[in-house]
Amino acid sequence: MSATCGHAEDPSHPIMIAEIIAAGSEMLTPHRQDTNSLFLTAQLNDLGVEVAFKTIVGDSLEHLADAARTALRRTDIIVFSGGLGPTEDDLTREAVASALDIGLHRDAEILASLYKRFAARQMAMPRNNVKQADILDGATVLVNPVGSAPGQMLDTSVDGYRKLVLLLPGPPRELKPLFTDVVKPLLAEILPPRFIARRLLRMPLIPESQVDARTAPIYQQYTDVQTTILAGHGEIQLHFFTSSTVLSEAQARVDELASRVEAEMQDAVFSAQGESLEEVVLLMLEMRHLTLAAAESCTGGLLGQRLTAVPNSSRAFLGGAIVYTPELKTRFADVPEEMIERHGAVSPEVSRALAEGIRKRTGASLGISITGLAGPNGGPPGPDEERPIGLVYIGLSDDRDTQVKELNLNGDREYIRWWASQHALDLLRRTLL
Amino acid sequence: MSATCGHAEDPSHPIMIAEIIAAGSEMLTPHRQDTNSLFLTAQLNDLGVEVAFKTIVGDSLEHLADAARTALRRTDIIVFSGGLGPTEDDLTREAVASALDIGLHRDAEILASLYKRFAARQMAMPRNNVKQADILDGATVLVNPVGSAPGQMLDTSVDGYRKLVLLLPGPPRELKPLFTDVVKPLLAEILPPRFIARRLLRMPLIPESQVDARTAPIYQQYTDVQTTILAGHGEIQLHFFTSSTVLSEAQARVDELASRVEAEMQDAVFSAQGESLEEVVLLMLEMRHLTLAAAESCTGGLLGQRLTAVPNSSRAFLGGAIVYTPELKTRFADVPEEMIERHGAVSPEVSRALAEGIRKRTGASLGISITGLAGPNGGPPGPDEERPIGLVYIGLSDDRDTQVKELNLNGDREYIRWWASQHALDLLRRTLL
Repeated sequence: MSATCGHAEDPSHPIMIAEIIAAGSEMLTPHRQDTNSLFLTAQLNDLGVEVAFKTIVGDSLEHLADAARTALRRTDIIVFSGGLGPTEDDLTREAVASALDIGLHRDAEILASLYKRFAARQMAMPRNNVKQADILDGATVLVNPVGSAPGQMLDTSVDGYRKLVLLLPGPPRELKPLFTDVVKPLLAEILPPRFIARRLLRMPLIPESQVDARTAPIYQQYTDVQTTILAGHGEIQLHFFTSSTVLSEAQARVDELASRVEAEMQDAVFSAQGESLEEVVLLMLEMRHLTLAAAESCTGGLLGQRLTAVPNSSRAFLGGAIVYTPELKTRFADVPEEMIERHGAVSPEVSRALAEGIRKRTGASLGISITGLAGPNGGPPGPDEERPIGLVYIGLSDDRDTQVKELNLNGDREYIRWWASQHALDLLRRTLL
Repeated sequence: MSATCGHAEDPSHPIMIAEIIAAGSEMLTPHRQDTNSLFLTAQLNDLGVEVAFKTIVGDSLEHLADAARTALRRTDIIVFSGGLGPTEDDLTREAVASALDIGLHRDAEILASLYKRFAARQMAMPRNNVKQADILDGATVLVNPVGSAPGQMLDTSVDGYRKLVLLLPGPPRELKPLFTDVVKPLLAEILPPRFIARRLLRMPLIPESQVDARTAPIYQQYTDVQTTILAGHGEIQLHFFTSSTVLSEAQARVDELASRVEAEMQDAVFSAQGESLEEVVLLMLEMRHLTLAAAESCTGGLLGQRLTAVPNSSRAFLGGAIVYTPELKTRFADVPEEMIERHGAVSPEVSRALAEGIRKRTGASLGISITGLAGPNGGPPGPDEERPIGLVYIGLSDDRDTQVKELNLNGDREYIRWWASQHALDLLRRTLL
């Protein structure tokens, strides 16, 4: 599914390692993930810090203090998110104080601002809320421009080792601006200067093993660049990341590696700067002054939804029809009734007629069609009845020619629909190349 | 964003607690989350086990062994996922052996089956792969029906406390069947019998604070039921969970709580058994022998995509048109050109005409329309130019009447489009009630 190789490490400056601790019992249910840690990891990487551990812990003082002690023992920078609210379950402050064996003091200025916040809304402040003014002895207050709980940063030492402890609020809309605007500049002053560079190459519809076999001989030569291969949703991503004390050096290294990998993979690479497949297709259409319309059967609007998720997609995408029934295939894309009866809706004939029909009906330069069996049930009585689930036809029509591509996809309904839309976009991309 | 309250604990049987450890450096990049832990948490909960910690650790022997030692100290059941492959980075076996200070032995039977696996593909087995036959001394081999790496379970004790250690492969397609088919029956024999019951109530388009204010007085009375409130994507979910040594008791408790909450929230609850809003709407249409067609402008196919993601949606959803340009609004839904010119596309008039037009064009019993400004850029020159981003009209037409609902949404493009589709579905639901 994925692999990471190499270390973005400069031997002259040993990397500081961090542990991210997310506090909240709801993240220990089957229903919710920690989501802050991806953002925090990117931010810490930007500062030249590697994340070595992530821990998720519930709202228990004992467990939180254990997590804090464990992280203080094994990492340099400890970033807590969550547990700074006013309720009895908000215990991060107390847990960190206990782990470090230090006190908490009630900050008069924060207390005043809490009272002011409630007064401005003409509400009495509940008694509980005063604990949001509790600050670790020696910590710097990180003023939270969005919510009521301030963050805290403590620069301390344990057994002679320097430790940076950050307490951040849990809601992403509070955590993100606080980190970007307040924490990052503070850390940048404390940590040794380090510049980072990233590149992202994206490839659709190609097996991970093939990408790895062809690119590993290249990226393994760049031991100073961290290469991560991710596979999923009909796409392979190659992430390159390095850090250096010299910005231009870092950028040159990832650019060189990215260029060599691109030269190897050629037109399998649809994006050399991280753009999505939808964005690439829309840009190509726009640059060629072409417009597109779609007739979707089994994807039911997924292709249109993906294209229109991109801002300004209306410059190239006109819309089209969701032709989920045989009648609508005839009504919106002029597919002859008897063609559907004779060949079935999941046939190269109907795929071709749909692509041509939607193009003519809308006046678009290109018409694309998707018709297939997404399952879990088979086709309706008639020619489609015996066809296998996963059989999909993509039609692409312009004013000279119509091509039809047959797919045999293997997966559940969601998988088949997604891959069908992915194949449609890639057929467009390759045709427009 | 979310809260959890109560403990699914029966005081006569203290709950065993677990730590889930995901091994893999790619999960410490900004690009990839651990995904197995949600599945594993649900499975462990089913067995009456609470997850107290989740840890994500990279492919480092030192860090993995530290994570293992930490988990052995603070929890009863330790579940590793990942790090059982054949590469140098696959170090979970070695790390656990080191943390427990026990040996590994090479299992002859597994070794033979590995050689057989490669022979069957007429490939020589790379030398590295033999380490997949390394088993912790005293562990039970968990035969993996899908991949080459077997799982392992060790029932041991540390400082007089019983510890269960599970080593599972990382790929979900291997981990899931192995847990369900092999691990779960084994654990069920070892652990005290315990029955669990769950219920899920879902409510669309209602603020979390309002749900919490109205339901907390009820669910707080059920201290034996764990209640988790999740908010997101235009929906509030109330998850109820309890475990007991008597199945009927557990079910009765969550059913009673769910009924009382439902009585309080009334028709805000669209799903009392966890069904999605799409499923509920399609079921209501089918039960009333009605059909639906959609004309989508700013959502560009999202509504159709959501409806057709449900198997058998074609029984009630016919399809419709993605009318992204003014021309297609006229061409596919017969909206008069001069109406669009005079009122703009984002107007109650066009919304109404679109809903009526698509209904008549398709012969559906109901026609629904979505037209709005999703941003980030404003409307085109003309009447839409001065309208605010987030303004959306939903039209719903049947053979007697057409209603138009105005929304003023506040968020980015993705948010506005999603909420617009959510409002459209809920308008359908409330109309069909």
